[in-house]
Amino acid sequence: MAVYTDITDDELSALLADYDLGAAVSFKGIAEGVSNSNFLLETETGRYILTVYESRTNPDDLPYFLELMRWLARHDYPSAEPMADRQGELIKQVRGKPCAITGFLNGLSVRRPTAAHCREAGGGLAGLHLAAGGFPMTRANDLGQPAWAGMFAGLEPAAEGLKPGLSATIAADLEMLARRWPGDLPTGVCHADFFPDNVFFTAGRFSGAIDFYFACTDALAYDVAVALNAWCFEPDGSFNITCARALLAGYEAVRPLGDAERAALPVLAHGAAMRFFLTRLYDWGATPAGALVRPKDPLEYERKLAVHRSSPDLVLFGTAG
Amino acid sequence: MAVYTDITDDELSALLADYDLGAAVSFKGIAEGVSNSNFLLETETGRYILTVYESRTNPDDLPYFLELMRWLARHDYPSAEPMADRQGELIKQVRGKPCAITGFLNGLSVRRPTAAHCREAGGGLAGLHLAAGGFPMTRANDLGQPAWAGMFAGLEPAAEGLKPGLSATIAADLEMLARRWPGDLPTGVCHADFFPDNVFFTAGRFSGAIDFYFACTDALAYDVAVALNAWCFEPDGSFNITCARALLAGYEAVRPLGDAERAALPVLAHGAAMRFFLTRLYDWGATPAGALVRPKDPLEYERKLAVHRSSPDLVLFGTAG
Repeated sequence: MAVYTDITDDELSALLADYDLGAAVSFKGIAEGVSNSNFLLETETGRYILTVYESRTNPDDLPYFLELMRWLARHDYPSAEPMADRQGELIKQVRGKPCAITGFLNGLSVRRPTAAHCREAGGGLAGLHLAAGGFPMTRANDLGQPAWAGMFAGLEPAAEGLKPGLSATIAADLEMLARRWPGDLPTGVCHADFFPDNVFFTAGRFSGAIDFYFACTDALAYDVAVALNAWCFEPDGSFNITCARALLAGYEAVRPLGDAERAALPVLAHGAAMRFFLTRLYDWGATPAGALVRPKDPLEYERKLAVHRSSPDLVLFGTAG
Repeated sequence: MAVYTDITDDELSALLADYDLGAAVSFKGIAEGVSNSNFLLETETGRYILTVYESRTNPDDLPYFLELMRWLARHDYPSAEPMADRQGELIKQVRGKPCAITGFLNGLSVRRPTAAHCREAGGGLAGLHLAAGGFPMTRANDLGQPAWAGMFAGLEPAAEGLKPGLSATIAADLEMLARRWPGDLPTGVCHADFFPDNVFFTAGRFSGAIDFYFACTDALAYDVAVALNAWCFEPDGSFNITCARALLAGYEAVRPLGDAERAALPVLAHGAAMRFFLTRLYDWGATPAGALVRPKDPLEYERKLAVHRSSPDLVLFGTAG
């Protein structure tokens, strides 16, 4: 849940005065997104989401995120379209912070995805990769493989605090990932956070994706690997092959993976688990006790790392069907 | 903000299967209400609020609250109407907790009420008192004057921690309030938490009230006193006579106060400040450091107590115009 910034009715009226969206009819902070503050805004013309960007989002990245969302919506990808004000601006200011108003997207996220959901999600991710083809802007993945060693530096004691000996294990993982990381896979726009809570379904069918605030230019198969980790593990930490097969089949029905992409999936999935382990490990120590957000457990991703470490070809079983 | 309970898509589907509201189209936790978890629920038939009642709300009180809300909505008072399931039940269970679905109420709450808002709010409160006339159920105010001494017992060190000497001042206040508390004023349904965040406006006009989960049977003028404290103080702690006059004028345009009610306003306002001071003082010490809710500052209400203590007839100026 996340509502870090409080917007008054007067601040909202002043903001809306710059748009052609009509006056506010209803306005409620919603528990969606972890990095920014989100509000459900209903005006005389419809329903919207107002997002206020907090310190975790670099303002310099906002044009990329919002132009991408506009591109996707205009290429018929089911996602929230940013609304421009009368001057054509997508990015505004409220209470000294950048903000944007986007369209409202119907649909529900699922907590315990079934294989059928995974198939739909895979198709939705591939659709995103295709719809974003031709998007002219780029953004380096600042949480990608080249950044991980630097992200871990200084967190060794935190890793040891989680589990004695973990620091050396992570260091060995990082060394292996640096050595084996593929450099020649097809790249494009990655969502990079395609988790179940960012994916909407309507009547069991994929109906849209939200929260493009980690989107970046990276190997498309890496985005698939992020999704495999996010969608295909059981709460007890075991890897669900059926779900992985379904996710990959759904993906490949829309965008078939090349041989090099498929062969790289195990190391990509190991690396994708590392990325989320590292940011959660950082947040675990950095979140102040009084914060209104509860940090996510890094051990969940340590367990996924352990699966990839002990069964490096496991995700390839997903491609065998 | 408050979303204490996490509802999965499966739990939501199972709940909705008992109603004739159609399938869920959208579902988001919202930052509204402090004691319970609230979700904006859109189904094929419209928009609703799902409230999950947490431990602070006594389940035995729910029939009173929900029947009151139904009564008010059916007597044309702008408030959220509880939805009955196919068996006629208003109170259901989800994840082992009681819950209810109510209609969605448009409107925005105001952060900094103007005198015009106060006039509208006063009228809205009087309208509630009239609309609830004849409501057959009763509920004792368990946070009313007879309870205050017991609520303060044990909190003396907490009061001293806020401000040295405060414990004796509060004890003297409590003694005075017990001695001077009026026992013969007209009673009826009080909202008992008619704060700006529970009152909606549309285009500057009162358009509805929410959060009836402190409603009870008490002196109607006490409800006015709660509202005077909530609406008519500046952020610097000073009492805004203009706002108080407007609130009372708006109230009396709908339901004129009797002479005894008007004469009792100073002691009622002093007592109403005591009630919120005491619950905030309790919460201040009782809220665990990791909770997802930030306790409200008891000193805000200590400052209001100080105003009533030093200028006991101040609120009467509001009735002079």
